[in-house]
Amino acid sequence: MFSQTDFVHMERALALAARGLYTTDPNPRVGCVLVKDGIVIGEGFTQPAGQDHAEIQAMKDARARGHELRGATAYVTLEPCSHFGRTPPCANALIEAKVARVIAAMEDPNPLVSGRGLSMLRDAGIDVRCGLLASEAREMNIGFVSRMTRKRPWVRMKIAASLDGRTGLPSGESQWITGEAARADGHAWRARASAILTGIGTVKEDDPRMTVRAVDTPRQPKRVLVDSRLDVTPEAQIFVGAPTLVFCASLDERNAERADLLRAHGAELVALGNEHGKVDLPAMLTELAARGVNELHVEAGNKLNGSLLREGCVDELLLYVAPSLLGTDALGMIDFAAPAKLDERKQLTFHSVERIGDDLRILARLVRAEDLQAQ
Amino acid sequence: MFSQTDFVHMERALALAARGLYTTDPNPRVGCVLVKDGIVIGEGFTQPAGQDHAEIQAMKDARARGHELRGATAYVTLEPCSHFGRTPPCANALIEAKVARVIAAMEDPNPLVSGRGLSMLRDAGIDVRCGLLASEAREMNIGFVSRMTRKRPWVRMKIAASLDGRTGLPSGESQWITGEAARADGHAWRARASAILTGIGTVKEDDPRMTVRAVDTPRQPKRVLVDSRLDVTPEAQIFVGAPTLVFCASLDERNAERADLLRAHGAELVALGNEHGKVDLPAMLTELAARGVNELHVEAGNKLNGSLLREGCVDELLLYVAPSLLGTDALGMIDFAAPAKLDERKQLTFHSVERIGDDLRILARLVRAEDLQAQ
Repeated sequence: MFSQTDFVHMERALALAARGLYTTDPNPRVGCVLVKDGIVIGEGFTQPAGQDHAEIQAMKDARARGHELRGATAYVTLEPCSHFGRTPPCANALIEAKVARVIAAMEDPNPLVSGRGLSMLRDAGIDVRCGLLASEAREMNIGFVSRMTRKRPWVRMKIAASLDGRTGLPSGESQWITGEAARADGHAWRARASAILTGIGTVKEDDPRMTVRAVDTPRQPKRVLVDSRLDVTPEAQIFVGAPTLVFCASLDERNAERADLLRAHGAELVALGNEHGKVDLPAMLTELAARGVNELHVEAGNKLNGSLLREGCVDELLLYVAPSLLGTDALGMIDFAAPAKLDERKQLTFHSVERIGDDLRILARLVRAEDLQAQ
Repeated sequence: MFSQTDFVHMERALALAARGLYTTDPNPRVGCVLVKDGIVIGEGFTQPAGQDHAEIQAMKDARARGHELRGATAYVTLEPCSHFGRTPPCANALIEAKVARVIAAMEDPNPLVSGRGLSMLRDAGIDVRCGLLASEAREMNIGFVSRMTRKRPWVRMKIAASLDGRTGLPSGESQWITGEAARADGHAWRARASAILTGIGTVKEDDPRMTVRAVDTPRQPKRVLVDSRLDVTPEAQIFVGAPTLVFCASLDERNAERADLLRAHGAELVALGNEHGKVDLPAMLTELAARGVNELHVEAGNKLNGSLLREGCVDELLLYVAPSLLGTDALGMIDFAAPAKLDERKQLTFHSVERIGDDLRILARLVRAEDLQAQ
């Protein structure tokens, strides 16, 4: 169905899409390659929100290089949009340019508009095909896909641990278990996330900034703090710079004064309590999705990690494993109780394993009950 | 110093050596390729102890194929032996055959004879070179090298754990955390070991046979049990078949009856106690080396694993990691206390990382204080 040449051009489109990894948020990262008579005449990728989508960039590029678009083939990593958002629909622009073929890696994951852009193109007489390197394209926008199809972000839990699964000494000392390269790599994963989430325990213990520093990015992810009882002090580093979103269990007259103080230091407070007087974590994910969070990067302590895992709020572990052993009484990575039977354990699959400096980076994905049932 | 052709032939010699992985014990695994006028005329690898060494096999092979050895080049993965053991010295045979060149991967690791075989060859006018693919050759015989240079076996500790470093549920349930492929792979590592060691805790808990089953081998490793108080029952599976070596802390009139009973069931008992009334583990390693154990494969519980680690008796971890999470109260892999400071943690290096079925296999080596000092 697709030729070798098609693969080459779509691979290139995916590489272009990756250039928007840190910047397109909350929009998906899309790449576009325009080919005519076997020659690449234009390339583009999604610009920051409100600016050009990949297709428009590629068309401008082709025209700037003096090419006529009529009869060209457009390779796009996501179905061209069909609706007026902050920018006019790309499908219209492709039709007006009279391209002959459009090859898309995947349909728009939003079930409300999925397929409409491709239909518009087909109705205009364009030869349209979809599904080339689809799984690579989905990976590129795994958070956007999650937000569109599940109304929740893709939740990636980052942990740095020893070979025996420990994250720090009994004293709490945990800096640094992994090496420089792993820490820099961790910042690259922070940079691609829409938001970085941590808990009050970590803020009290380490007072982290939760910003991207080790890699260059024009956009800092939103910072999110889970703090059920609103214990955080306004002097915490997490409030320095841009506003930080704080989820607590309740906002009422008892904590009104503290709430005002935090707001004055740039905190935005959201009360979302569950019956235990804790932040309702699944509801928090829904709220974050509603605010446009695609990928949520979690760097928290074993308590919050455990709560997120127990409540089904984790999609994958981003686990840096150092070649060391810390000992039985050292801190565990995720605080949760073992099941009664081995076949009730939390199952994952290894998505990727790589050496990063002297450490290992393991990306492992939770196997969900619904996925198992679907098999 | 070495040509591309030399590399090709030595790679082949290493591949031949690997054919003896399960069988040459306690001898090293050696491969030999004989080349004349650019053509491979003979190949061989070490036969089971008391039978031909690799060089003799290769010479017999060449002669059987009608080749004249005079002027040939011999590629051997280990310096040819120079002494009469159970077989005559290979160096003599090469000299008598009038080969022109000998290329060895490494010298004999035994400091008492190291270099003698090569000297004999040089004295006979043969062009001798050494050091081609030396580190690959050392890996092939890492246990033999350890026994010759350190008077102790190479100790490989096999553990199957979850991503959070747990080996079983609080109930003790641990079968099976890893998958079929990892278990079969584990048996291949058992098969290459001279001996398999476990502890009384594992015997009481699981009553394992500790034999090689999942892979085909003509030789079963010696089974070794650490049982300080001689608690094992003679009905234990570990005594079924060949004799098993049991290390205990003491043998005296108090346990004489039990000792006799165990001996009647095929146990060989060795008393090696330390001041705490436990088996003296470092002394046990010395004893095992004296008995010709090159690679010691450990499959024990977290208690014995912890003792071995604390007492510096571990060289590498053979860690199968399953993509699952077991929980905070599940069993740890190695029971030992965390150090006071992070820079006093047990440091390792990742030697290899591979996917085995749905699991990961990580080979990680302990970085020893003396290695650190040597840097």
